[in-house]
Amino acid sequence: MTKSSISTDVAIIGAGPTGLFTAFECSMLKMACTLIDTLEHVGGQCSALYPEKPIYDIPAHPSITAQSLIDSLEKQIEPFSVPRLLSRTVVELKGEKGNFTLITHKGDEIHAKAVIIAAGAGAFGPNRPPLVDIELYEKSGNVHYYVRYSDQFIGKDIVIAGGGDSAVDWALALKDKASSISLVHRRDRFRAAPESLCRLDQAIAKGEIKKMVPYQLHQLHGEHGAMTQVDVISMDGEIQKLKADHLLAFFGLTTDLGPLQSWGLETVQGRIPVNQSTLQTNKEGIYAVGDIVQYPGKLKLILQGFSECAMAAHAIYSVVRPELALHFEHSTTLGIPK
Amino acid sequence: MTKSSISTDVAIIGAGPTGLFTAFECSMLKMACTLIDTLEHVGGQCSALYPEKPIYDIPAHPSITAQSLIDSLEKQIEPFSVPRLLSRTVVELKGEKGNFTLITHKGDEIHAKAVIIAAGAGAFGPNRPPLVDIELYEKSGNVHYYVRYSDQFIGKDIVIAGGGDSAVDWALALKDKASSISLVHRRDRFRAAPESLCRLDQAIAKGEIKKMVPYQLHQLHGEHGAMTQVDVISMDGEIQKLKADHLLAFFGLTTDLGPLQSWGLETVQGRIPVNQSTLQTNKEGIYAVGDIVQYPGKLKLILQGFSECAMAAHAIYSVVRPELALHFEHSTTLGIPK
Repeated sequence: MTKSSISTDVAIIGAGPTGLFTAFECSMLKMACTLIDTLEHVGGQCSALYPEKPIYDIPAHPSITAQSLIDSLEKQIEPFSVPRLLSRTVVELKGEKGNFTLITHKGDEIHAKAVIIAAGAGAFGPNRPPLVDIELYEKSGNVHYYVRYSDQFIGKDIVIAGGGDSAVDWALALKDKASSISLVHRRDRFRAAPESLCRLDQAIAKGEIKKMVPYQLHQLHGEHGAMTQVDVISMDGEIQKLKADHLLAFFGLTTDLGPLQSWGLETVQGRIPVNQSTLQTNKEGIYAVGDIVQYPGKLKLILQGFSECAMAAHAIYSVVRPELALHFEHSTTLGIPK
Repeated sequence: MTKSSISTDVAIIGAGPTGLFTAFECSMLKMACTLIDTLEHVGGQCSALYPEKPIYDIPAHPSITAQSLIDSLEKQIEPFSVPRLLSRTVVELKGEKGNFTLITHKGDEIHAKAVIIAAGAGAFGPNRPPLVDIELYEKSGNVHYYVRYSDQFIGKDIVIAGGGDSAVDWALALKDKASSISLVHRRDRFRAAPESLCRLDQAIAKGEIKKMVPYQLHQLHGEHGAMTQVDVISMDGEIQKLKADHLLAFFGLTTDLGPLQSWGLETVQGRIPVNQSTLQTNKEGIYAVGDIVQYPGKLKLILQGFSECAMAAHAIYSVVRPELALHFEHSTTLGIPK
């Protein structure tokens, strides 16, 4: 792979859904941009972790899988031929507003007038439960931390562990495919959208999902290298044996903001505080959008990230094109251009 | 039509795209809601003014017509069977947070714990150019202020007047259907998205669109009640005669916030200032989203309105369900619910 040297208006770090839509918004404003991502493909967690997962709250998409969402965003920016540097981690960011240089771990240099960080949770990996021999069953394909292809679970006995959206949504999504589903959580209550919790209650009442609470994962058993059983344990030491071909463990992601933290950006609990009107960080000319940002009223919703892309692109326009007035937003306060 | 008396958690005033998506967000949070609109159909301006107009900046919809956007949003809320009161104007809003009463001009009473105003620009109508006999040609169907069905322009000579998005976008959208298109504007520069302006320049260069600037509409001519010619006039009085079967005049909308202004809500230049984290107005329990709101960084983009719907619904949850903690947003600052 050869090193690149690129000059662009806006360098976009992260090519997940908000990174892709940031490229669209920048392109609509005739600003050149370049997408950079650590992964070897665009789409971020959507493509890497849960491509088949249906998403229900993208406006005007009653239901869309994560990968279809990415495909649609790709199609939306296709006319603009946005350059992308994949399998590249930005390790250094120097310079100032109007004149930044980004250096990747492969030595590429990107010169940009402004930077938008759309890095989601940063580089990511699953939280793995501390079980004896779990590596063996990870290798044999019986332990999963995310679901890329759901058809592998048709007719199988499945244990799903975790108490959040992923555990609940996958239990619901797989209940008609799997032979059995046990949902294990160390607390009584699950944490998911009220609508999903309601559907979960119905599925439990119908016996489609077996609720195992409060229990924790205890031990994995197998034969000939394939998993056959998962033992779970209650707070007072009672053990239940669950027949299981697969264990799906959803204990969240460990995330790593990585080199980003050495760029002089303020971070609070792994997120970057921004001005919520401009999405600018504490460093002039560096903006951030999507799950990585924090401001009052911030929700980690893709649809909110999309709005941030538009606001950031509009705010950044004056940095990239200081000589032009931004006259296509019809606010009466801007007046009519001459 | 019979009067209704309805009790709901959230009354949503306005059933355009943001009103519809507000209903989705409220429903996802298990809050009952009711949509109220002055029009006899949902969809607001999208359905009433430009159903066939393609929109390019809805995330993950590379191109979608305004009516298809509305249809998709309708489909998204279908599972929730949201009640709707159409052809109803809310004339009175009284009470306070937790206990509002809305009264429509037909005498319906809606009792709601909270109110979200998604009224766009309010009741709307076109700005009509002051031309002699224009009423005649409005009646004969030769003068248009919005386009509901574009096929009527196939093979016709068309004059489009105006300098904004609507004029530019319709000139581009109709250039392959019409026999000729003259685009008349009293200034040199058009005000539209840079990408659209670029396409306009190309179409003008190719002769697909005839640019007539700076000119103003001057006089309409016809035979047997049908339009045949539009005269335009320059600043120094020079007149050009344009062959024309149809005149499309896009001089913006007059809008009327109407009774809304008597509810004690602060308005600035016809828009409602809101807290940009909660979308709450100056009156506790009354929220506003979409084109009607103003805050620093506000853009009149549907996609930004969608984000506001989500933020408002989450903020309103504590008003409607004060007894429940909102525990499905994964901010670490909220802690894990017990």
